[in-house]
Amino acid sequence: MILESIRGQHVERDNLHSSAHWAFSKVDQWLLQEIHQSAGRPPVRLALENSAAVSMPGAVPVATIRLRDRMTLLGLILDPDAGFGDAYAEGRIVVEGELVTALEALDRAACRSHSRNAYASILAKGLGYLQRNSLRGARKNIHRHYDLSNDFFQLWLDPQLVYSCAYFPSNALTLDEAQVAKMDYICRKLNLRPGERVLDIGSGWGALALHMARHYGVTVRGFGISREQVLWARRRAMEADLGDRVEFIEDDYRNVLGTYDALVSVGMLEHVGAEHFKDMGRIIDRSLGPSGRGLMHTIGRNSPRPFSTWITKRIFPGAYAPTLRETMDIFEPWDFSILDVENLRSHYARTLEHWLERFEGSVHQVSAMFGADFARMWRLYLAAAIAGFRTGSLQLFQIVFARTDCRQIPPTRIHLYREESRTSEATGD
Amino acid sequence: MILESIRGQHVERDNLHSSAHWAFSKVDQWLLQEIHQSAGRPPVRLALENSAAVSMPGAVPVATIRLRDRMTLLGLILDPDAGFGDAYAEGRIVVEGELVTALEALDRAACRSHSRNAYASILAKGLGYLQRNSLRGARKNIHRHYDLSNDFFQLWLDPQLVYSCAYFPSNALTLDEAQVAKMDYICRKLNLRPGERVLDIGSGWGALALHMARHYGVTVRGFGISREQVLWARRRAMEADLGDRVEFIEDDYRNVLGTYDALVSVGMLEHVGAEHFKDMGRIIDRSLGPSGRGLMHTIGRNSPRPFSTWITKRIFPGAYAPTLRETMDIFEPWDFSILDVENLRSHYARTLEHWLERFEGSVHQVSAMFGADFARMWRLYLAAAIAGFRTGSLQLFQIVFARTDCRQIPPTRIHLYREESRTSEATGD
Repeated sequence: MILESIRGQHVERDNLHSSAHWAFSKVDQWLLQEIHQSAGRPPVRLALENSAAVSMPGAVPVATIRLRDRMTLLGLILDPDAGFGDAYAEGRIVVEGELVTALEALDRAACRSHSRNAYASILAKGLGYLQRNSLRGARKNIHRHYDLSNDFFQLWLDPQLVYSCAYFPSNALTLDEAQVAKMDYICRKLNLRPGERVLDIGSGWGALALHMARHYGVTVRGFGISREQVLWARRRAMEADLGDRVEFIEDDYRNVLGTYDALVSVGMLEHVGAEHFKDMGRIIDRSLGPSGRGLMHTIGRNSPRPFSTWITKRIFPGAYAPTLRETMDIFEPWDFSILDVENLRSHYARTLEHWLERFEGSVHQVSAMFGADFARMWRLYLAAAIAGFRTGSLQLFQIVFARTDCRQIPPTRIHLYREESRTSEATGD
Repeated sequence: MILESIRGQHVERDNLHSSAHWAFSKVDQWLLQEIHQSAGRPPVRLALENSAAVSMPGAVPVATIRLRDRMTLLGLILDPDAGFGDAYAEGRIVVEGELVTALEALDRAACRSHSRNAYASILAKGLGYLQRNSLRGARKNIHRHYDLSNDFFQLWLDPQLVYSCAYFPSNALTLDEAQVAKMDYICRKLNLRPGERVLDIGSGWGALALHMARHYGVTVRGFGISREQVLWARRRAMEADLGDRVEFIEDDYRNVLGTYDALVSVGMLEHVGAEHFKDMGRIIDRSLGPSGRGLMHTIGRNSPRPFSTWITKRIFPGAYAPTLRETMDIFEPWDFSILDVENLRSHYARTLEHWLERFEGSVHQVSAMFGADFARMWRLYLAAAIAGFRTGSLQLFQIVFARTDCRQIPPTRIHLYREESRTSEATGD
């Protein structure tokens, strides 16, 4: 029941049984309005259980965000991102309606509003300091996410455990096929030749390194600091009889040694931090031979913006998605040429849709492993990432770079599209 | 005859008839050494007519650069770039051997040496100030190059007068075909649809605007500040019966009005100056509709570096080739997404090879028009540009950008390469 309109927001009161309730409800309404206002007035209905609610006048709300109690209300005021995320995980916030759609609406409104919460900013700075990617800090940050449990990631990733944006040359591809297509696309972009030495910085569970060795005849050295991933990758190299050509080393990118013909780094730059990009460039410069080239695949932004405090607190400690300009700190000081940049943003939205669908299909197992709060937390993370790639608050850049004298990359990209090979082989091993 | 080796350079003396000559020659040798040293010791022989010469020990010189007199020697010491260029134009320097090969060697050595000449730096700063791209200054700068004479440019450009990097999907293409292929490639990258409104900033002699209107059914408004070009373009629009859909306006990009679905700017950003990139971004932001996209095609660099003083003095006053990072000043403040960057450096080398070949074929006509010094000056400019794109001191970036909400660009680039259409129609009108 809409009673009044204050500051252009429609305020509803549901159950007003007494004057005490009435007084509380007035405060609730005011706080909900403040939250809605500073969230950029998204087309969602914001409701406090058994009390007030607000929504945008004229707009049909795409979803209702229902807060269970007043503590949650205060949490949202103090730090909207972390307040929302934690309350959702703990079941103190329920989203009635399609979760991704609601998050998209919130994301679009936030982009418009540009409002900054002082407390959240201070918290973000503090977190940034605590989670800084020193050699030791990076290991801790990576451990928290990637060492959760291989069994867990197997529940919802593809069989090869490729945990980065896939490539969908056609809408008909399955996730498994699209991950193979992505790995192959990267090999083509680098124009890998048999016998070449490839450095894989952030080699994950090893799928790309094995793909390169198996299909392109190269030798690969992969570096990673997640122990679970490295052990898994080594086992897979042995099983695939590629142990002589693919080596996985548990060490930081700053300790990379040797020289290579090509470099790949997929979904790892997000964990480096912009303040270390010059280090990254120095490492790449000393690792690549005189005709070397490389591909950097990373989540990015149109303009600089940190991840939400909730994401860095609960999901990716120490993570940062750079703008294209910021990535130039890696390449410019060493006179690398940028040959090709492709934005695969819509492909990451689709990849994440697959992941979320598989995740939902296994949510009972996830809950049994880590509890219901964890399952809700990861649902929110995956859904928010879909929303981010759909709205464009997140981008995905694939950057091909090379030494000035590199002649290994053809003068046109026609070879990348001549035949959509290997996507039909798909599903891998 | 090699007599001695000082500081690792071989010093030759040819004609030493007297002790006066001997004394002069000692100074000449020392100056030549200094020049050779600060040029980064290129594998060329540097010789003063009837006196000393130096070359790199061990290296077979790719060419001999012969100085006619001692004034030329002093000019090279004061400002190597401008000294070399002016002396070459005036016939006081002769290059014995292949000119482009010699310039490549000089360019590679200069990249290695990083030596900075204080006088030349001051001169460059002063020139930068005198040639700054204010509304009035930009008009003057553009006038000096592009208003030289349409007859002159017709001697060595393709029939459509496309004065920017062509696109060679195959080596078999002629220049005329490759320019058509380039224009078509741009239209595909923007995925132009019939009825759309396109803004062409720096529309030159109008070839691209006419191509877009003719083959993609769009309406185009082109802006340029070279009167000769605008008049020519208008006449061609009339002749092609496209006067109702293509309009050419003689005005600065800062005065652009109206809103458009797409924007192109080909070979114009070089004349804007990095200090005006934010202005350019503001203009683009106010000109593009909510789902707008654009393509920026520009000469660039791996790392920041001005054009040589000779190029800005004699060929392109006020010009600057930006790094990819610098171009982000255009896009980042307005939250444009970078969708695609392609480096077409080798295509520009090939384009310039065609231009130089045609130029040489018409050099007598050029000399008859503007004199022999002018003809040598332009030969040097074209040859130096080939060298720059071959060595990689110059890059060519095609940047596709779009509003976050733009859905006009397909999620993959496969459509760009599906059929290599229109390249066979080629040679234009």
